[in-house]
Amino acid sequence: MDKETARIEAFSDGVFAIAITLLVLELKIPHEDDVAHVALSTLLLRQWPDYVSFVISFTFIGIMWINHHRLFNHIKRADNTLMILNLLLLMGVTAVPFPTAVLGQHLGHYDDRLAAMVYNGTYVVIAIVFNVLWRYAVRNGRLLGRDADLETIGHISKQYAFGPLLYLASFGLAWVNVAASLALSFALAIFFAIPPHVATRHKREG
Amino acid sequence: MDKETARIEAFSDGVFAIAITLLVLELKIPHEDDVAHVALSTLLLRQWPDYVSFVISFTFIGIMWINHHRLFNHIKRADNTLMILNLLLLMGVTAVPFPTAVLGQHLGHYDDRLAAMVYNGTYVVIAIVFNVLWRYAVRNGRLLGRDADLETIGHISKQYAFGPLLYLASFGLAWVNVAASLALSFALAIFFAIPPHVATRHKREG
Amino acid sequence: MDKETARIEAFSDGVFAIAITLLVLELKIPHEDDVAHVALSTLLLRQWPDYVSFVISFTFIGIMWINHHRLFNHIKRADNTLMILNLLLLMGVTAVPFPTAVLGQHLGHYDDRLAAMVYNGTYVVIAIVFNVLWRYAVRNGRLLGRDADLETIGHISKQYAFGPLLYLASFGLAWVNVAASLALSFALAIFFAIPPHVATRHKREG
Amino acid sequence: MDKETARIEAFSDGVFAIAITLLVLELKIPHEDDVAHVALSTLLLRQWPDYVSFVISFTFIGIMWINHHRLFNHIKRADNTLMILNLLLLMGVTAVPFPTAVLGQHLGHYDDRLAAMVYNGTYVVIAIVFNVLWRYAVRNGRLLGRDADLETIGHISKQYAFGPLLYLASFGLAWVNVAASLALSFALAIFFAIPPHVATRHKREG
Repeated sequence: MDKETARIEAFSDGVFAIAITLLVLELKIPHEDDVAHVALSTLLLRQWPDYVSFVISFTFIGIMWINHHRLFNHIKRADNTLMILNLLLLMGVTAVPFPTAVLGQHLGHYDDRLAAMVYNGTYVVIAIVFNVLWRYAVRNGRLLGRDADLETIGHISKQYAFGPLLYLASFGLAWVNVAASLALSFALAIFFAIPPHVATRHKREG
Repeated sequence: MDKETARIEAFSDGVFAIAITLLVLELKIPHEDDVAHVALSTLLLRQWPDYVSFVISFTFIGIMWINHHRLFNHIKRADNTLMILNLLLLMGVTAVPFPTAVLGQHLGHYDDRLAAMVYNGTYVVIAIVFNVLWRYAVRNGRLLGRDADLETIGHISKQYAFGPLLYLASFGLAWVNVAASLALSFALAIFFAIPPHVATRHKREG
Repeated sequence: MDKETARIEAFSDGVFAIAITLLVLELKIPHEDDVAHVALSTLLLRQWPDYVSFVISFTFIGIMWINHHRLFNHIKRADNTLMILNLLLLMGVTAVPFPTAVLGQHLGHYDDRLAAMVYNGTYVVIAIVFNVLWRYAVRNGRLLGRDADLETIGHISKQYAFGPLLYLASFGLAWVNVAASLALSFALAIFFAIPPHVATRHKREG
Repeated sequence: MDKETARIEAFSDGVFAIAITLLVLELKIPHEDDVAHVALSTLLLRQWPDYVSFVISFTFIGIMWINHHRLFNHIKRADNTLMILNLLLLMGVTAVPFPTAVLGQHLGHYDDRLAAMVYNGTYVVIAIVFNVLWRYAVRNGRLLGRDADLETIGHISKQYAFGPLLYLASFGLAWVNVAASLALSFALAIFFAIPPHVATRHKREG
């Protein structure tokens, strides 16, 4: 028997794959007229905010994919609510490239504060949805397998509890200092990229 | 042995994943010249119809995906006709973002009546194809598994019977009152998002 | 043990899913300025060649997907040559929306003859690659399963043998009469949409 | 039990499928005004650099997909580091269409040297990531199956060792002679398209 969540994962992988590649579409290929009148080095260099946005968007969506994969290692059963929460999560993931590109364009400009708040605000919402989905699935073992690894599951729950509040701090910090706010966001990305038992510093897996 | 429909589902998931993300491509990222001359808040706010269209399109395609998933929980075998009906369905799903974006752009404008009719007309067609596909698969248990859950299948058939007529009502209502027409569409979306035995109010699963 | 070709099929499904949705990107959503100055009916109607192109492209790529699925029902093993031939096939499939859109734009215009030749020329190439891939896989049962259904396989080989020559006829016919050439192409699409034992009119499956 | 890497492969297939089709979006479909004023033959012919870029990009990404598939035939287990290395690899793959299109536009123009260096530089990075990922997985059999085919694995390691240095040579060669540099790149693509035991000329598989 196939895992009940197989198709949810396959569909999610498709949406993640599209979202993660979206900002490559913003890279403008120099065309005939440009080629004749502007040096290629100039054409390539003046797109640097687009490269930065692509790399940030790819990295963050990649880390969210790792987290989605991590959760669905434990979630073995599916119901209608899980599908709806998962769609909400995917809507957030799909939206990410837009605020990331807005941020990339405004770094060092007058409006970078608002750009950083929109950017971090998106992650506040995503962090909340990740928590709701996860807590819905694990509550009383609702959608877990019979052989659920309760210790790892506990580590994940603990790690995830930090998400919304810390992204909210990052959101508020943007009003005071954009650089500090982004530094906190990037630190959070690393925190969620590493496995929960390392992230929450308890002990290593056997 | 793999499920005969595995590849139909995988291909459908790919098409659904693309369709559901299409309207994110309509969000325009402010570029260099905009950044210098227009406040970011202005740039972000004047795109509100695009955000609305994206959210509506994502929600409705997500609900259609849930329905596709629900049907293929019961459809276990495949034949040429099923593949062709499924392609017809996917063509409808792929088309959805276009009338949704047209609707989003025209809300509150002179032509919103035509926009709402095009929008609801698309769903009339999709609701018919959903019914044809489903009835083709279940007629005499043609493409069901041996252990088919006939009660749930009956609930789905009953729920689906409402689709074409109610979307047709929504289509006609647009001529009289756009807001009422859209309210009915959105109510229908919720009706199809929830499981059939709840939607048709008979009883809960054991 | 998984089928050796599982990942080739999954990757192909992804490429087919993208190719089949490509022309929906050509549908232009009326934006603010259009909304104020042009009636929506005008905006929608003047895009009719784009709708025609989308439907034709979707239908033909859908039929090619059905054929790909049909072949890989029999192909059970994979080797490097199969992967390369499959990539060639996918390159052809990915290219299809472009000549289809060119054809849609030129129907009824001066240059429709060239457009029809480019269109049919694409299918000549694809029909050849389909044949080469299939004949490579079945020669001496090279990549078939142990329980290969030799009768169906023979029907497919017979049906496919018609492809390149008939598309070549369609290509040549475009020089003389565009409508006749397209009629032949569409007849061929139907011929390849139906199962081979029906298409080659031998007998029905048991 | 499913292969632990199943979902990594599925997600990778999605990203590869998008990357491989990206440059088809650069093909400009002649629209109404063009149709009336310019001959179709002219419109089609002046896009030749875009066709060349599409074919090159498709071919190279296809070959990288074959290699990814080849590696994951041997990699049976997954951990967090593998997922991160795989994401790095996919970021490189997603970036490929951009330098390829830049190269296509500049062939025969003043700046082709820089274009060729950017192009080959991308492959230097990708070749390094391919090696790091592979060596991480096979070191002490870390992520291999129990029945690992050590001979083929050794052939792959040997073949891959050539990658970074030869692409670096290709990168440097671009400074001296663009044609020679591209010839070397294309030879390398063929070298990585064929199976390792053939490529490293040891012996044939049993």
